[in-house]
Amino acid sequence: MPKPTSPTYRVDFEPVGKRVEVAPEATLLEAAQQAGLALASACGGMGSCGQCRVEIRAGSVSPPTDNERVILTELELRRGLRLACNTRVRSDVKVHVPQSSLITTQRLQLEGNLGEMALDPLIHAHDLELEPPTLHDPRSDLGRLAAAIPPIPGQKVSADPSTVRQIAVTARACGWRVTAFLRDGEIVGVAPIGSPPLGVAVDLGTTKIAAVLIDLTSGEELAVAGVLNPQIGYGEDVISRLAHAQRNPDGGHTLAAAVREALDGLIGELVEQAGVSRDRVADACVVGNTAMTHLLLELPVHQLAVSPYVAATDAALDVKARDLGLATAPGAYVHVLPCIGGFVGADHVAMILAAHLDQTDHVALGIDIGTNTEIALAKPDGSLSSVSCASGPAFEGAHISDGMRAAAGAIEAIELTETGVTLRTVDDAPAIGLCGSGIVDGVAELRRWQLINERGRFDRDHGRVRQGRQGPEFVLVPADQSGSQRDVAITQEDVNEIQLAKGAIRAGLEVLLDVTGTAPEEVKEVIIAGAFGSFLKLQSALDMGLLPRLPNAGYRQVGNAALVGARWALVSRQARARAQHVAERTAYQELTTYSDFSYRFALGMLFPSLDEKVA
Amino acid sequence: MPKPTSPTYRVDFEPVGKRVEVAPEATLLEAAQQAGLALASACGGMGSCGQCRVEIRAGSVSPPTDNERVILTELELRRGLRLACNTRVRSDVKVHVPQSSLITTQRLQLEGNLGEMALDPLIHAHDLELEPPTLHDPRSDLGRLAAAIPPIPGQKVSADPSTVRQIAVTARACGWRVTAFLRDGEIVGVAPIGSPPLGVAVDLGTTKIAAVLIDLTSGEELAVAGVLNPQIGYGEDVISRLAHAQRNPDGGHTLAAAVREALDGLIGELVEQAGVSRDRVADACVVGNTAMTHLLLELPVHQLAVSPYVAATDAALDVKARDLGLATAPGAYVHVLPCIGGFVGADHVAMILAAHLDQTDHVALGIDIGTNTEIALAKPDGSLSSVSCASGPAFEGAHISDGMRAAAGAIEAIELTETGVTLRTVDDAPAIGLCGSGIVDGVAELRRWQLINERGRFDRDHGRVRQGRQGPEFVLVPADQSGSQRDVAITQEDVNEIQLAKGAIRAGLEVLLDVTGTAPEEVKEVIIAGAFGSFLKLQSALDMGLLPRLPNAGYRQVGNAALVGARWALVSRQARARAQHVAERTAYQELTTYSDFSYRFALGMLFPSLDEKVA
Repeated sequence: MPKPTSPTYRVDFEPVGKRVEVAPEATLLEAAQQAGLALASACGGMGSCGQCRVEIRAGSVSPPTDNERVILTELELRRGLRLACNTRVRSDVKVHVPQSSLITTQRLQLEGNLGEMALDPLIHAHDLELEPPTLHDPRSDLGRLAAAIPPIPGQKVSADPSTVRQIAVTARACGWRVTAFLRDGEIVGVAPIGSPPLGVAVDLGTTKIAAVLIDLTSGEELAVAGVLNPQIGYGEDVISRLAHAQRNPDGGHTLAAAVREALDGLIGELVEQAGVSRDRVADACVVGNTAMTHLLLELPVHQLAVSPYVAATDAALDVKARDLGLATAPGAYVHVLPCIGGFVGADHVAMILAAHLDQTDHVALGIDIGTNTEIALAKPDGSLSSVSCASGPAFEGAHISDGMRAAAGAIEAIELTETGVTLRTVDDAPAIGLCGSGIVDGVAELRRWQLINERGRFDRDHGRVRQGRQGPEFVLVPADQSGSQRDVAITQEDVNEIQLAKGAIRAGLEVLLDVTGTAPEEVKEVIIAGAFGSFLKLQSALDMGLLPRLPNAGYRQVGNAALVGARWALVSRQARARAQHVAERTAYQELTTYSDFSYRFALGMLFPSLDEKVA
Repeated sequence: MPKPTSPTYRVDFEPVGKRVEVAPEATLLEAAQQAGLALASACGGMGSCGQCRVEIRAGSVSPPTDNERVILTELELRRGLRLACNTRVRSDVKVHVPQSSLITTQRLQLEGNLGEMALDPLIHAHDLELEPPTLHDPRSDLGRLAAAIPPIPGQKVSADPSTVRQIAVTARACGWRVTAFLRDGEIVGVAPIGSPPLGVAVDLGTTKIAAVLIDLTSGEELAVAGVLNPQIGYGEDVISRLAHAQRNPDGGHTLAAAVREALDGLIGELVEQAGVSRDRVADACVVGNTAMTHLLLELPVHQLAVSPYVAATDAALDVKARDLGLATAPGAYVHVLPCIGGFVGADHVAMILAAHLDQTDHVALGIDIGTNTEIALAKPDGSLSSVSCASGPAFEGAHISDGMRAAAGAIEAIELTETGVTLRTVDDAPAIGLCGSGIVDGVAELRRWQLINERGRFDRDHGRVRQGRQGPEFVLVPADQSGSQRDVAITQEDVNEIQLAKGAIRAGLEVLLDVTGTAPEEVKEVIIAGAFGSFLKLQSALDMGLLPRLPNAGYRQVGNAALVGARWALVSRQARARAQHVAERTAYQELTTYSDFSYRFALGMLFPSLDEKVA
């Protein structure tokens, strides 16, 4: 019970040295959110993922919950380890946050390697040298600017009140020598004469937000920056966030505000890097999965979270940047690319665009592996089909005993030798867990050395397999060598998690080939996009059957294709038209409506036989 | 000096019974504003108009200022009379507010008598009966609606995020049976099936705001309402308000917020009268003078207030109603009609529209008399010219010793007989002052009975003229018969004020005829628009030369033509196009650039000779 005499308690987080005041009975996760600490929390505070482990060093908290008794050992609980989301504050407390529970140093992949797009931006700059108004020439400020802009037939020059406000002030401050930024006849901003307009392209990921600043006149990249999506504090995956938006009366607004603030900060970082003024940012393009763009625009998400999982809108949207709380040129728009459906977002459209899947002269697959894995199949006849596979968060390090994101100390590459293990960790820090590429490598190696069989069962009799608390496991790093003083191991459950993910992806891919009447031999190219896909060791993915070995296909890892697509849409009217076309003509295939999907799923969970692998 | 121990003082206003807490040294005008009391204050708190008289009944206030010693008599000061704007609070005080200092019961003219416009609204309603989404048909909510709307070639159905938000909720609540309101392919709102869209037309006057609610499908008028412009609390005339917007760091925002709140309240009153939901208000049209529309849109006004007095924009503007804080259909726009210049606003454009001056087959004048008097001259060749005359606030009751607005107790009609005076007051209340039509009648009668001469001088030897405190005057109502226990009189200064106003109007009209090469005989019609113009006794205006006797012209008082114009623009796309055309082709003539303007002004101040009057 809260003590009526003490309205707040102090929570000290170490070693980061953050201190906050919270109400009695607040959870430590809430306290961490309040402190701006990015505590890992894949399940969004439901007490099921076990990522938000913290250690109580002093003070009084609520007793362990049933969830905690399942996830933590008796020993851990005795040492003061707790799940922050299940632990309520009952006095001033001191809390130690292990590095493995933090996601602040995570590696962000910002860009892709997919070339450039010919410049054809929506924004055009006009340098204007005007006479100031007199009693004999009392035209309005906007009228004066408009008259000096070369006329385009059928297009009247306009400006919204915010821009008119800026024109009146800036034109006088600059002695009526200004550059006007025009977008289809609308002046979206003015700047001192000779200022080229700039644009920002954004990939709004569930985990990270990546953005580039582009000079719209030259196409030059002026700055690049990334930041973690602050919505992580409300749940790491999409489902947890949609739940947060619905469970809390102001949830949708809170999530929108968080991501808008981060976006505005990112723009600030970009213009600071480039040494330019925010006023010159005259356009922006945003891509993201359907939930992320819905949350950004504060669109309703209830219908996204329940069957049949429909988007409120799949159309491209142009909204004023200021309506999203972004400080830019006063009339600037944010263009949110169209999406295909509830599970196939604008980021997928952008990936198709950047990978030229809409213009392919051969059968090609585009795959973005993540919690949802989207796969597009393109044919030379122009047809496009997509599926979305519920591959789960294993590749993000969730649902894996020692899983973590690709932050310092995460094992990202594994090779088993006859007697030992060779590892590489992010930042070469002491190993504290496994990130996605590490777990894929690890499972591939376990299979190669036959420590697991075709069905994924550990060989309990193998000398390198040990019996752990929850079944057989393989120890990668013993406690005395790890950065967390705990063993880092791959358990039977981890292998099963990976099998589920793999089964979902393989089944989706097979249904996609099937419904489009495509034989595996026809596929000439497999493009692997996205952050996880670019750090993935392709050989391991093929060895363990995460991706199929297609006999005639070349495999290409292209990096952040979604951001490249956003960037193209930023600088090219034609790219926006192509994106629209892609969204309209891509046939979304709902996997669960295929009768043999479950059968394929089960088959897809099996590992290749060792013969098959060699073949 | 403020007492450091008392952070606020209490001010009681009687007889209204309002009480507020203010800081020491706050003025009583500020206290009244805070109390929501509409104290008259034509000069905007500069201490010069003398309208904000109040009586201190208890408590301590600052000593009388020099301004007050000029405007109030020693006796009045001794009785506790003060100007609220010049009096600072130095203890708890009780203040009596005489009715003549209040403007709350003012008469509002809401409508004009100019006929109807053929229906051709921007908003069209589509009744839609849709199938709900399934896994086999997971189209987005917006996509589902869009597909059911009959396609228009080249037009893609869209909706902004606010509307998408409403669609997702309303469509489900109505079982997918909805009416969609479309505007050029954009869905601006949805409602339960069978709901016709509604629109609001607004005349945003300096003093009053008048509005009508229209069924956009039938054209039927559902409700009409009016309210005083709450910006009056920050100055009664345009200049005082522009000064307030500039003098105060947040002044523009405060004025915008005040009028937006009033507008939103007015919409609330309209929908309540009609018994409909705000969600159905799918369109709005606003007219007003250039300062009023600038203040509504929070456009910069500095350049409006200093020579050469230019508008920030003269273009028609479409802004989202929600951006003005108006609760309507979520995507509804407010269309602000275009203006002609800093002194000739959208209300003038609307008047020209409603009076058909842009389609006349004869030479016609349109006159809207006010603090600024705008005059338009139209010819059958389609040419349109306008002037704006600085006629001053005399017709609004300001700068007149016993002047007031047309509220209860205002003398609105006067007839002098051989020995007496016949009066009519607003609401037949005991006379407390003179409103505009009263002062015009009064001066015309003084001239008819030769109590003043051609130059406006009182005949001091006339038995009915008395020597007042500031010169000769004519007493209309002695103190013992008045509602204010003070004499109500017309003074020499009052006559001079009217002469200044008349001079400005006559000079403007003559310059307008002159620059357009129009002989007075050519004018066939004089249309007198606006509130003052419709209460004005035409005979008196002609007798005293406020308006010229044009030999071949018919005179027509048409009421609130600006609101009629706004209403036409609301229901007719063609009317909006005509308004745009009017704004573009009306030639604004800046009077001060004409060399003989001052000469004409001086001549225009003279009264007609009695022969002339009879002729």
